[in-house]
Amino acid sequence: MKSPRIPVAILGATGAVGQRMIQLLENHPWFEITVLTGSDRTIGRPYGELVRWVLDGAPPASVANLIVQPSDVVADVAIALSALPTDAAKLYEPLWAAHTAVCSNASSYRMTSDVPLIIPEVNPEHVNLIDDQRKARGWRGALVTNPNCSVIGIALALKPLYDAVGLDIVQIATLQAVSGAGYPGVPSLDIIDNIVPNIANGVEEEKIEAEPCKILGRYDNSTISMATMRMSAQVTRVPVTDGHTALISLKSVRGLSVADANAIYASWQAPQIVRNLPSSPAQPLIIHTHPERPQPRRDRDLGAGMSVSIGRIRSCPVNDLRMVVLSHNTIRGAAGGAILNAELLVAAGYAGK
Amino acid sequence: MKSPRIPVAILGATGAVGQRMIQLLENHPWFEITVLTGSDRTIGRPYGELVRWVLDGAPPASVANLIVQPSDVVADVAIALSALPTDAAKLYEPLWAAHTAVCSNASSYRMTSDVPLIIPEVNPEHVNLIDDQRKARGWRGALVTNPNCSVIGIALALKPLYDAVGLDIVQIATLQAVSGAGYPGVPSLDIIDNIVPNIANGVEEEKIEAEPCKILGRYDNSTISMATMRMSAQVTRVPVTDGHTALISLKSVRGLSVADANAIYASWQAPQIVRNLPSSPAQPLIIHTHPERPQPRRDRDLGAGMSVSIGRIRSCPVNDLRMVVLSHNTIRGAAGGAILNAELLVAAGYAGK
Amino acid sequence: MKSPRIPVAILGATGAVGQRMIQLLENHPWFEITVLTGSDRTIGRPYGELVRWVLDGAPPASVANLIVQPSDVVADVAIALSALPTDAAKLYEPLWAAHTAVCSNASSYRMTSDVPLIIPEVNPEHVNLIDDQRKARGWRGALVTNPNCSVIGIALALKPLYDAVGLDIVQIATLQAVSGAGYPGVPSLDIIDNIVPNIANGVEEEKIEAEPCKILGRYDNSTISMATMRMSAQVTRVPVTDGHTALISLKSVRGLSVADANAIYASWQAPQIVRNLPSSPAQPLIIHTHPERPQPRRDRDLGAGMSVSIGRIRSCPVNDLRMVVLSHNTIRGAAGGAILNAELLVAAGYAGK
Amino acid sequence: MKSPRIPVAILGATGAVGQRMIQLLENHPWFEITVLTGSDRTIGRPYGELVRWVLDGAPPASVANLIVQPSDVVADVAIALSALPTDAAKLYEPLWAAHTAVCSNASSYRMTSDVPLIIPEVNPEHVNLIDDQRKARGWRGALVTNPNCSVIGIALALKPLYDAVGLDIVQIATLQAVSGAGYPGVPSLDIIDNIVPNIANGVEEEKIEAEPCKILGRYDNSTISMATMRMSAQVTRVPVTDGHTALISLKSVRGLSVADANAIYASWQAPQIVRNLPSSPAQPLIIHTHPERPQPRRDRDLGAGMSVSIGRIRSCPVNDLRMVVLSHNTIRGAAGGAILNAELLVAAGYAGK
Repeated sequence: MKSPRIPVAILGATGAVGQRMIQLLENHPWFEITVLTGSDRTIGRPYGELVRWVLDGAPPASVANLIVQPSDVVADVAIALSALPTDAAKLYEPLWAAHTAVCSNASSYRMTSDVPLIIPEVNPEHVNLIDDQRKARGWRGALVTNPNCSVIGIALALKPLYDAVGLDIVQIATLQAVSGAGYPGVPSLDIIDNIVPNIANGVEEEKIEAEPCKILGRYDNSTISMATMRMSAQVTRVPVTDGHTALISLKSVRGLSVADANAIYASWQAPQIVRNLPSSPAQPLIIHTHPERPQPRRDRDLGAGMSVSIGRIRSCPVNDLRMVVLSHNTIRGAAGGAILNAELLVAAGYAGK
Repeated sequence: MKSPRIPVAILGATGAVGQRMIQLLENHPWFEITVLTGSDRTIGRPYGELVRWVLDGAPPASVANLIVQPSDVVADVAIALSALPTDAAKLYEPLWAAHTAVCSNASSYRMTSDVPLIIPEVNPEHVNLIDDQRKARGWRGALVTNPNCSVIGIALALKPLYDAVGLDIVQIATLQAVSGAGYPGVPSLDIIDNIVPNIANGVEEEKIEAEPCKILGRYDNSTISMATMRMSAQVTRVPVTDGHTALISLKSVRGLSVADANAIYASWQAPQIVRNLPSSPAQPLIIHTHPERPQPRRDRDLGAGMSVSIGRIRSCPVNDLRMVVLSHNTIRGAAGGAILNAELLVAAGYAGK
Repeated sequence: MKSPRIPVAILGATGAVGQRMIQLLENHPWFEITVLTGSDRTIGRPYGELVRWVLDGAPPASVANLIVQPSDVVADVAIALSALPTDAAKLYEPLWAAHTAVCSNASSYRMTSDVPLIIPEVNPEHVNLIDDQRKARGWRGALVTNPNCSVIGIALALKPLYDAVGLDIVQIATLQAVSGAGYPGVPSLDIIDNIVPNIANGVEEEKIEAEPCKILGRYDNSTISMATMRMSAQVTRVPVTDGHTALISLKSVRGLSVADANAIYASWQAPQIVRNLPSSPAQPLIIHTHPERPQPRRDRDLGAGMSVSIGRIRSCPVNDLRMVVLSHNTIRGAAGGAILNAELLVAAGYAGK
Repeated sequence: MKSPRIPVAILGATGAVGQRMIQLLENHPWFEITVLTGSDRTIGRPYGELVRWVLDGAPPASVANLIVQPSDVVADVAIALSALPTDAAKLYEPLWAAHTAVCSNASSYRMTSDVPLIIPEVNPEHVNLIDDQRKARGWRGALVTNPNCSVIGIALALKPLYDAVGLDIVQIATLQAVSGAGYPGVPSLDIIDNIVPNIANGVEEEKIEAEPCKILGRYDNSTISMATMRMSAQVTRVPVTDGHTALISLKSVRGLSVADANAIYASWQAPQIVRNLPSSPAQPLIIHTHPERPQPRRDRDLGAGMSVSIGRIRSCPVNDLRMVVLSHNTIRGAAGGAILNAELLVAAGYAGK
């Protein structure tokens, strides 16, 4: 007999990230969407009628008939995937977390000390913070977050190197896809035959400089000790639909050649607990040797959008190493990242059955 | 009475850069195109009939009727602007330089020790190398070069800082327009909804790391002492027609705050000899304060494509300073740069009347 | 002594069309902008501070310091150029028209029987409707409109043929630039690597089918007799910033070969009253013979954006003739069209001195 | 026991269409690629080393090691899928057809009287021409062709209407993807922020006007009687990677309302022989009701790229009906079309076991 699937709510289901969550959960082996929430304009209406679907095709029939619920009324689900805007997330996620496991894509609580900021392949042990979180806040549920859409690829690419040789300096330039701004997001008049050398007036760069230090930090005695790399980021928006590219130059603590890096990546594998999660890609990191790869349009969908691509690993005249990192910003970098976190919570016993 | 204009040849006139030279010389107050050269396929035919004009509008009527000449037969002109491909430039530019002043956009001789690599606002005194060049080679003409299309904007932006506080480290990421690859150049299938994280398989990066050190070097006693900055470049091709963007992070020798940089730029001006050249922009450097500028489509044409834009001057957590530099790659960065060099040679007495 | 310039207001000055009007009036020989109006959010603030300038460069210094006024308070100007949204135009343009000459780009009154819908080269005599309009409405000013941004190019291309041989059927497919939707307008996620086969849910097509019949209609005895062509339009939005392309197949009343059409265009010229207006292009219609022209990026700026390009005049297996028509949608098709109408009103004695 | 698969050759395997054939045959239940042919430059080298793969990801491992063979030496296979360029197709396809079943995507023999031009859902009975072809030419194999990449979608959309009410006039405007020109194909400088209103200097339009008349023609007594519709096409190239859009206006012989058309499409289904072919989509025609669909990026992959989308079925002020048709030009319109033809030949007993 097939066991019943775990009921899941999508908070903020009408936006671009919410739509991706719905798309990715179609035919998910563990999860079943039973609740969708939306803004005032959408409450009480069937999802399929009101959503302006921006992805390929159309919304799955199974959710098209769900009636949109308010985001501030906690529903009886085991897991809530949150694609809420920052302000709404700030207000409503704690309400849900008191009762259920919330996996949030919002930035509101990412840097809060008792909220895990998780990439399952990188720091699954940070889920232990949930015990402290529950104790301190009296919650029965939990709140975990996934990083900024650019950070997920970068932190995953840095992890094996950080563990092997330590990192001192990480200099980053990004070329980010328009889907990172949601929908309607970037006006076409701003981006056809153009690039924009800033995102969110510096706030994107602050996230890229801060979040990896928490993610690569060590969980110890109920706190996260931040990694102490010096990070610098310069971001741009480019005329690409999906797929964020990061150009990275880095200096290690203990020295790092190109051969070292290749060896480190060749031997690295994801922690055991992550390997068999339904949304885990066979290869979380794919090393490209073609000199013109990775490219967003051609490589973003590797591993069903969950693999991170690394290419052009070269020595740097200033630091130790340079490389190019690509990840699918709305799958690995947002919706898929939140779903993988939810799967991790189930595997670790913090959510579900 | 209007004085006669200086006769000019365009070598390699049918390519994208040659076309720009022709476009920019329409109505030039000093120069008159009297000779066009092209490849075997084109020799003996009227330019207007054979050229596949890739710029806006159509070729000027005044050149459409010129019969294309071979590149290996030196014509009687005062100046030759060379848009030859690298191999042809290697062969033919010395032939012309023996008799006339050659201003080349090709990379073939840029790093040759007795060939000036010039941006008139940056290192006009390097023209003095011509005396040495003439003596050593027995030429009556001269060969001067302009830098790679990305380097011109970068070196011009670095110049005031270099003079004021010295530069130790310059880290660069570029987003380069497709016109930099000429025509047909980048296939559309490679660049729609995409970026390519490499140009010329690393050679573009080598140029960006090498050429500024010569340009910012000091002419002294018949040689150029190279500037000793450590340069690192990572380049990308983006779906933009014209306008190269560079994200720069730099460390000075003597310390540099954002306020310092703004003050340095505010007081900087081009050397006297350059200011009144016909193609000199009123402002060689334009400092933008809008947080989302400069942008290629909106700012590349400032100063008729000859001004370089600088924006987002910010401190850097790793180095001293970060900024965004934009320049029009086929005007300032190629055809216009070569023309400005030709004007400098006239002003300095090395070419023309 | 230089005569004083005519004071002009821009209604709805902060949108994309309002910005174009401001850009095009910089250094205008007759007109001087003295009043800008905007929405509630903008009233009382200096234009330069609040506008999100979407064109190249920055707003002219001369208008940057003007304080934005409400659109519902009529100012003391000779001419008001209206870039108001449809609803606001409906409400406010009559208020202004009671006192001053309003040249509107809005669609609200285009098909109203006593409001001229004018392209100066096509139907300047329709200005005579103003006499009837003033009488009927008791206005001292006037209200004239310019057509939809696609219609201007199409109607101008049809005019010489219509006069020469009559038109029975006109079948049109358009590829329209994103700037036609204003700013923010078309989301980039909808148009990168994509086209959208509809604009305004059919309303754009209705305008294209209706407006040319009024424009090509005959003014007679205080009314316009509509032209009786059968028009069919299918529109698309394409990833182009500026420049609407129309593919046209047409059947004449009296027969029309390719040679006929070429002869008709060769001998056509704009009416006398229009030829010397400041914004009149030297060639309102430019006939291209290159088989791949006209193209939006390469030909939209011909005649400073006021020339309409026609290419690929060919016979049609179904109708008489096929051709491709291109016009700059925000210059000739909107802001420049309204300004040219204002100039016509001055020349015809309906506005100004 | 699994039965052995049918050996297949790809002729012209290195180009964009050849690559698609390879991609689509990965894991095909009936066919196994055993031979790849290419141009002189490529013969004797492993495919994986020499191909410049322009699709997503990389070539399947199973073909990467195949050594490229010459196109003029017939190999021992049951089926040859030809992606040869026109001239090579003209020369070599008959050589192969003498021995094996050739399914060609080339235009060389499409209009030849004894060569079937087939869309399996439209005119599978045309395969009977093979009997005549074999008799006349003494071939043991066969040569069948699939239509031009734009024609496949158009002819499939017309078929149900043609059968039901007859067609008199079909007027077509296309917006075609750059992949239709192969690789390198359309230079990015020609198509960023631009459209080109011509393809192959009129030849594309001739194909669109001619091929549907053969496809919709009747096989009778060893000949095809052409359908007698009057067709007119105007084509454009647009900045889209994959997916050709056609705007169609049509006049039927016996009258056709929107309701008629919807009813005709609702009741139409593919012929029995086609329904269970491995590459047959569940729905060859998908009718869209959303007013802004179909769109190339969002709908081209429906039915794994083999479904044709129809939208905006509306009445026409000139003809009976207008609609928008979209199909994936390199899958349904080229590689997938050839494969589906090969499957039809197997099902009809003209190839394979």
